[in-house]
Amino acid sequence: MINPKYKEMLNAKNQIRELAGFAQKRGAEIGYENVFDYSLGNPSVPVPERFNDVIRDFLKNREPVKLHGYSPNPGLAEVRDLVAASLSRRFSLPYKREHIFMTSGAAGAIAHAARAVSCPGEEIITFAPFFPEYVPYINETGAILKVVPADTTSFQINFEEFDKLLNEKTAAILINTPNNPSGIVYSEETIKKLAALLREKEGQYGHPIYIISDEPYREIVFDGKKAPCISALYENTVMCYSFSKSLSIPGERIGYVAACPNCADAELIIQMCVQISRGTGHNCPSSLIQLAVGELLDETSDLSVYETNMNILYDKLTELGFEVVRPGGTFYIFPKAPIADAKEFCEEAKKYDLILVPSDTFGVEGYFRMAYCIQTEKVERSLAALEKLAKAYHMI
Amino acid sequence: MINPKYKEMLNAKNQIRELAGFAQKRGAEIGYENVFDYSLGNPSVPVPERFNDVIRDFLKNREPVKLHGYSPNPGLAEVRDLVAASLSRRFSLPYKREHIFMTSGAAGAIAHAARAVSCPGEEIITFAPFFPEYVPYINETGAILKVVPADTTSFQINFEEFDKLLNEKTAAILINTPNNPSGIVYSEETIKKLAALLREKEGQYGHPIYIISDEPYREIVFDGKKAPCISALYENTVMCYSFSKSLSIPGERIGYVAACPNCADAELIIQMCVQISRGTGHNCPSSLIQLAVGELLDETSDLSVYETNMNILYDKLTELGFEVVRPGGTFYIFPKAPIADAKEFCEEAKKYDLILVPSDTFGVEGYFRMAYCIQTEKVERSLAALEKLAKAYHMI
Repeated sequence: MINPKYKEMLNAKNQIRELAGFAQKRGAEIGYENVFDYSLGNPSVPVPERFNDVIRDFLKNREPVKLHGYSPNPGLAEVRDLVAASLSRRFSLPYKREHIFMTSGAAGAIAHAARAVSCPGEEIITFAPFFPEYVPYINETGAILKVVPADTTSFQINFEEFDKLLNEKTAAILINTPNNPSGIVYSEETIKKLAALLREKEGQYGHPIYIISDEPYREIVFDGKKAPCISALYENTVMCYSFSKSLSIPGERIGYVAACPNCADAELIIQMCVQISRGTGHNCPSSLIQLAVGELLDETSDLSVYETNMNILYDKLTELGFEVVRPGGTFYIFPKAPIADAKEFCEEAKKYDLILVPSDTFGVEGYFRMAYCIQTEKVERSLAALEKLAKAYHMI
Repeated sequence: MINPKYKEMLNAKNQIRELAGFAQKRGAEIGYENVFDYSLGNPSVPVPERFNDVIRDFLKNREPVKLHGYSPNPGLAEVRDLVAASLSRRFSLPYKREHIFMTSGAAGAIAHAARAVSCPGEEIITFAPFFPEYVPYINETGAILKVVPADTTSFQINFEEFDKLLNEKTAAILINTPNNPSGIVYSEETIKKLAALLREKEGQYGHPIYIISDEPYREIVFDGKKAPCISALYENTVMCYSFSKSLSIPGERIGYVAACPNCADAELIIQMCVQISRGTGHNCPSSLIQLAVGELLDETSDLSVYETNMNILYDKLTELGFEVVRPGGTFYIFPKAPIADAKEFCEEAKKYDLILVPSDTFGVEGYFRMAYCIQTEKVERSLAALEKLAKAYHMI
């Protein structure tokens, strides 16, 4: 019979999609250029033209039966080799083909990694604020998602609350840095403290606690910095990567799982991902797209617009009196609403054609997210609307 | 901790992959052209050149941020419209966009369709011989796969045995016609009898019994015939299609679920597939590949080689005294082994560099599968080896 579990999921509202839908509808009335749509995390800069060039090149020069033929379940060997070599160069860890499993984006990577390192009934801990799709990602594995309340002063890890949730059933920690929605990059200090605590608990509980590291924003870091590499600081790390944001190709659904070479059962985890994929119906991303990203592993789109936009927004928000932690990366900023009810605030913002996402979607109350992956010109035009909104709340 | 369920799956041998591996190894010794490798169902004819042309066209003429941008969860609206229109033209059923969910091939389609129309603990029935991946596909949904023994005289449905397995817990029937591995196409008579029986049981049990119709070989039918359309003969049908075989693009991982417009809860099933995909990590096939197949819905590769190969092999096998039902489609043939132990027979065949797959993998004993998606010239050269093998068993 019709499965009631999935039927009931239809009743839950997706606030982000609804706001994006509102923005489109409002755009039809007043012109989309006049809607300051900060709802969706959809890259706004084009893929490097070389991505399209390498596809043309493969279409021209490779034998079609092979080019479009079955990829082995863990991904094309030549692409896995390229990914391993690129990660090794970059993070000074001895990645090999055997540590890499090609996936349909980070969603596919997390779906497989989480099933490999946890059993139904075990717990996976994440930190608020967090990407709301973590709930179905983890629920469907049979593991239980536990959420550590946010440290709203810095949006680093709230260790006091985290410590309370750790127990013998903790199989894995799901982290996302640079973070959606806060834009915060976990400091090396935070990650080292996390690693030390997890190692201590591993000894205490007598089993590994894996970090599932969701890293789609790894390349979007500001002020000329780099995001600390989790895998280099904690051995039991399973990296989940997506090319969606770095190459602006979210529709091509391509990413990978990379088990840290020093991770317990690293190669086994990758072999298990293959077995898991037989049940998820995954069976590899597109061969052509695998080959294409394989040629662009050390490249990104021109991501500088996100830093430009962040600085404009951060300066204006602080000038207007919003409490906001300056993002270290991503294309999100996460200010505190001037009233306790962020939903009401975001509803009010619509009157000024500002589309903001209230923070309860991300497991925190009283904040809102702005996804500034839009044209800088539009960010600038939105400042007057932000000012009017602040005035409506007597902030200025 | 490492999930023991998936770890244990690693211990099961994949006979087809092992034989394909042996063929490669033997090829390295004597030249692959001298190995009569009938192991893998990998298309041997190229994709129509127009597939590559339309990709080039999209890369040239579409705005990259949109072209490679997020596809909505059920697939690109324009592609779903094209699929619905093509199915409507072809099968005279009123398909609309709302009936279509784009997937990563038939594997992805079955993973989602099965989860939508069954609950854990319910039963899904399939018919031997069957594609062995049905076991993990169904096991992972929580439903229980029940297998009807083969009718080895015709490889149509064994209704007597089927009737014994039907009960109130039967949620769905998973069928595959044209069939891998038998090559048989279910007759209209078979499907009508199946439909009548299911309707009777639906009335008796008071709930729909869905047919999940796995149709990747739909376009590969011989003697100028067409495969009867299940959805036209039984309303509660959820079609699972793949372009892998018809367009020779198995590596591009593209297909769809199409709920019959007359199916109970047709649109709900598609909406539920979207919810299910949040847990499987699926989130759409590649946008570029979706768009490309959207332009080739009424085309196929030149599939005539498969019929040519089938006729050569069928004639030779019958001449040599093999008991074999003539395939109506696909690129498989499924003769009876001259001894009860098909594994032993296929082991013997290796001595003649003939790579045959024993039938126990497909839920039947004493038969073997030949995947003749290879060059006709090689099929012809293999006949002498087949003859020697028959002689070794004193068949001639």
